[in-house]
Amino acid sequence: MTDMAELPPEPSGWLSDRELQHVRGELPLLYVNAIPVRISPTGQLTHVGLLLRADDGMISRAIVAGRVMYHETVRDALLRNLEKDLGTVALPRLPLNPTPFAVAEYFPTPGVTPFHDTRQHAVALAFVVAVDGDCEPSQNALDISWLTPEEAASEDIANEMVGGQDVLVRQALAYCGVLP
Amino acid sequence: MTDMAELPPEPSGWLSDRELQHVRGELPLLYVNAIPVRISPTGQLTHVGLLLRADDGMISRAIVAGRVMYHETVRDALLRNLEKDLGTVALPRLPLNPTPFAVAEYFPTPGVTPFHDTRQHAVALAFVVAVDGDCEPSQNALDISWLTPEEAASEDIANEMVGGQDVLVRQALAYCGVLP
Amino acid sequence: MTDMAELPPEPSGWLSDRELQHVRGELPLLYVNAIPVRISPTGQLTHVGLLLRADDGMISRAIVAGRVMYHETVRDALLRNLEKDLGTVALPRLPLNPTPFAVAEYFPTPGVTPFHDTRQHAVALAFVVAVDGDCEPSQNALDISWLTPEEAASEDIANEMVGGQDVLVRQALAYCGVLP
Amino acid sequence: MTDMAELPPEPSGWLSDRELQHVRGELPLLYVNAIPVRISPTGQLTHVGLLLRADDGMISRAIVAGRVMYHETVRDALLRNLEKDLGTVALPRLPLNPTPFAVAEYFPTPGVTPFHDTRQHAVALAFVVAVDGDCEPSQNALDISWLTPEEAASEDIANEMVGGQDVLVRQALAYCGVLP
Repeated sequence: MTDMAELPPEPSGWLSDRELQHVRGELPLLYVNAIPVRISPTGQLTHVGLLLRADDGMISRAIVAGRVMYHETVRDALLRNLEKDLGTVALPRLPLNPTPFAVAEYFPTPGVTPFHDTRQHAVALAFVVAVDGDCEPSQNALDISWLTPEEAASEDIANEMVGGQDVLVRQALAYCGVLP
Repeated sequence: MTDMAELPPEPSGWLSDRELQHVRGELPLLYVNAIPVRISPTGQLTHVGLLLRADDGMISRAIVAGRVMYHETVRDALLRNLEKDLGTVALPRLPLNPTPFAVAEYFPTPGVTPFHDTRQHAVALAFVVAVDGDCEPSQNALDISWLTPEEAASEDIANEMVGGQDVLVRQALAYCGVLP
Repeated sequence: MTDMAELPPEPSGWLSDRELQHVRGELPLLYVNAIPVRISPTGQLTHVGLLLRADDGMISRAIVAGRVMYHETVRDALLRNLEKDLGTVALPRLPLNPTPFAVAEYFPTPGVTPFHDTRQHAVALAFVVAVDGDCEPSQNALDISWLTPEEAASEDIANEMVGGQDVLVRQALAYCGVLP
Repeated sequence: MTDMAELPPEPSGWLSDRELQHVRGELPLLYVNAIPVRISPTGQLTHVGLLLRADDGMISRAIVAGRVMYHETVRDALLRNLEKDLGTVALPRLPLNPTPFAVAEYFPTPGVTPFHDTRQHAVALAFVVAVDGDCEPSQNALDISWLTPEEAASEDIANEMVGGQDVLVRQALAYCGVLP
């Protein structure tokens, strides 16, 4: 899951790149994952937003992801990472209930869980977040596309996702009662 | 719980008052309960809205409540009852996830559960709903007051609520991570 | 969803068959749905139990389902219906948290929700229930079969289920983190 | 929250004490919190188990807590920490659904959240776990006491807990529908 590495510049006092590299092999790192969605006037999920990325010439689709920093709340980490990936006018609506709908455990070894990240053991608190505003791809993404639940759960899209995030998207659809 | 009786006029074809009276002693009736809340820009619960009612000269506080009608979805019943009690410009945001945070089982016999309704056995799917707009008390309510989590969970307010709804309010605060 | 009609004999004082028939067209009826599962020693879902039924010469697969009766708690209704469908030594473990993982709204009109019941508007609180003991099909079922998550989520099994219960099974697998 | 430091010996290859000390000031560390409970035959919470500890001559009560290690699943971390604190014959029943009922964010600075840990920024996935077997205090605890929901939610018990764990206990009671 190459996306999870796209970290913003960190304030001094935090781990250096070299230290973080070391820690990645010693500790599970805490992440947030967010699945941006469009909703109908009555609050029902209509579309799922996936980021289009080009990493090493490979095109892939991804959800919003990023680390929780030292002395940062999960809620603030969610907002920061949503802004990083969707821009400043996406107007995300964080859930009232701060409990994730799923905990995605990305293991460096494939097969332990449905989730896999070659670089590290990352544990991501996953949320579905309605966004009302305009989303503009950040420098890390080529585009954002909005898919119907049917499209988002399709095999074609699953094949374009990495690290098991297709499983998380389908879990999110099930959680919102719109798994096709 | 006198509030749960305040039903809107129903389309013909539904049960007559006399029939409904009879069914009330034979079947559990399906209700929705909604706890309206105000949220901060980052999505955290800041205030709980309680309706002020005068029934038979008694002043009490209540949450939004009403029946789910035949051929009505739970989501539509929520919207209809929120509009009935908070007016047309409250702009409620229904949760993405249509699963209630609690199921309040109101029994005609006190003590079976924390919830009690002398008139009937009512099972209410309970939701916390953020409202952004202006709330205006309907004909059934004198006023709406917005309380901090501390106030809403206080003994004073609990004493002004009936049918065990004070328990449901504290469950909602716990669910949103702001139980004082 | 023919299964939901298989009601046990009811104590006197409850609705007669004729009355129930009438009410079915006037009110949403409250049901419980239970998906029995086998778990590993560490508590992970390994198999889903589906009932095999023969109704009017049609073979179908179904989950545990039944009405919540007057003055019966949801928990007691769950236990009664599990015993009705799985026998007396199934040893079901009800969840600590009495909130359903999903609310399945069966409409008499197809297409309103994923769930459909020609006879009535039924709203079912749905639970996943681990069973440790021996399950023996009741008179209403020919057999109980235990399927892996992959099998339970397959198109073949979905085709053998009615009323949209295949959707609920996949929602349950997603909820338990084992959606294939 | 002194309890969260009681870590078991770790396999070589993991962080040394000195390294862990350093990382504690740079990264949020991932923990699990577990609230052991006794249940009735129908699965309802009847008692909450709290550990009695003596740290630096101060007596306090605590829930089960511990770190998630590198390459360890949350489920395995829960089982390991339950065994560490309750012994080998407690027979804990992990929830089918691997999502925590709450995420407790322990900050080194008091007041940011209800949870506080002077040593570190720890983010704990919190679970309620029914235990059927005998619980025996480990070397870190003097005793385990089983309290009714009323006792567990009382001010007296809250005063004996540190780091905000009394809030988490009341959140757990609310989640299980037995908040007094």
